Amino acid sequence: MDFPTLNSLSYEEFVNIFGNVVEKCSLIPAAVWSKRPFANLSALEAAIHEFIDALPESGKEGILRCHPDLAGRDLQRGTLTPESREEQARAGLDALGSAEVSLLAQLNQEYKKRFEFPFVICAKMNDKATILRQLSERIGKDRAEESARGIEEVKKICHLRLKALILHKL
Amino acid sequence: MDFPTLNSLSYEEFVNIFGNVVEKCSLIPAAVWSKRPFANLSALEAAIHEFIDALPESGKEGILRCHPDLAGRDLQRGTLTPESREEQARAGLDALGSAEVSLLAQLNQEYKKRFEFPFVICAKMNDKATILRQLSERIGKDRAEESARGIEEVKKICHLRLKALILHKL
Repeated sequence: MDFPTLNSLSYEEFVNIFGNVVEKCSLIPAAVWSKRPFANLSALEAAIHEFIDALPESGKEGILRCHPDLAGRDLQRGTLTPESREEQARAGLDALGSAEVSLLAQLNQEYKKRFEFPFVICAKMNDKATILRQLSERIGKDRAEESARGIEEVKKICHLRLKALILHKL
Repeated sequence: MDFPTLNSLSYEEFVNIFGNVVEKCSLIPAAVWSKRPFANLSALEAAIHEFIDALPESGKEGILRCHPDLAGRDLQRGTLTPESREEQARAGLDALGSAEVSLLAQLNQEYKKRFEFPFVICAKMNDKATILRQLSERIGKDRAEESARGIEEVKKICHLRLKALILHKL
């Protein structure tokens, strides 16, 4: 898709295409559509970041809470969004042994208990070994630090989703 | 559901139950969960209103853009959320004659062209006659006025959805 095409999309078309660039938060692209035209991918991303960064802390945690657990119930039940399913599969999380599934479930549980939001990491930029290592490390941080780190990962995920959509969608 | 039960829900349970009190904006209840405990329905609503009111204008318009057209494509295709389907049916919008469907489609189109977000009204507090009259009237207002009015209607819809969930869900 070229940017003149992207900038000419109605809000309905835009939300249809970009609605899940931030997992289950179609409110964000629906809001950011107001800021068109966008000169390029960086400009579109900058508008998304600006919106996210202006949210109160509860809103940033809310974004994290819209994310599924890695290798969690949604993966097992087949209820992941298509984007998350592909990303988790790419990191090898759909082909874990049962001991790895249990370990990840236990760490996810501890993480959520401590921080009150799930562990979020850009699965496409990691594999199961680095994900497990990161999760073990990050579980020891404090809440504000982890929320900020989670939002950084949300932005990486968003970047890859946007790039893929712009390259392939139209 | 009593409020001690509600306040003891994990964020996953809370978002599961209340995720659509603002249409397709689960980010909002996911954020507001941070503000628990809630003494009662008014306190929960106040937290939701506070979150919405603090959004920039683009965010408020974004909320409106997450709403379907009344008697529009989603109703015809069966792709409404369960809440919207019930509300639109209650107002008689699933049993319109073809002339009424065309008229509503034309007015919705004009409204969206003018304001860049859809006409939002609490269908449960209206019937098809008052909806058509409101739509015809509101189409002549200015954008800021209509965005504020749309958000008022979002809050009415949210109130009724919350009440129904708290009464019946648990």
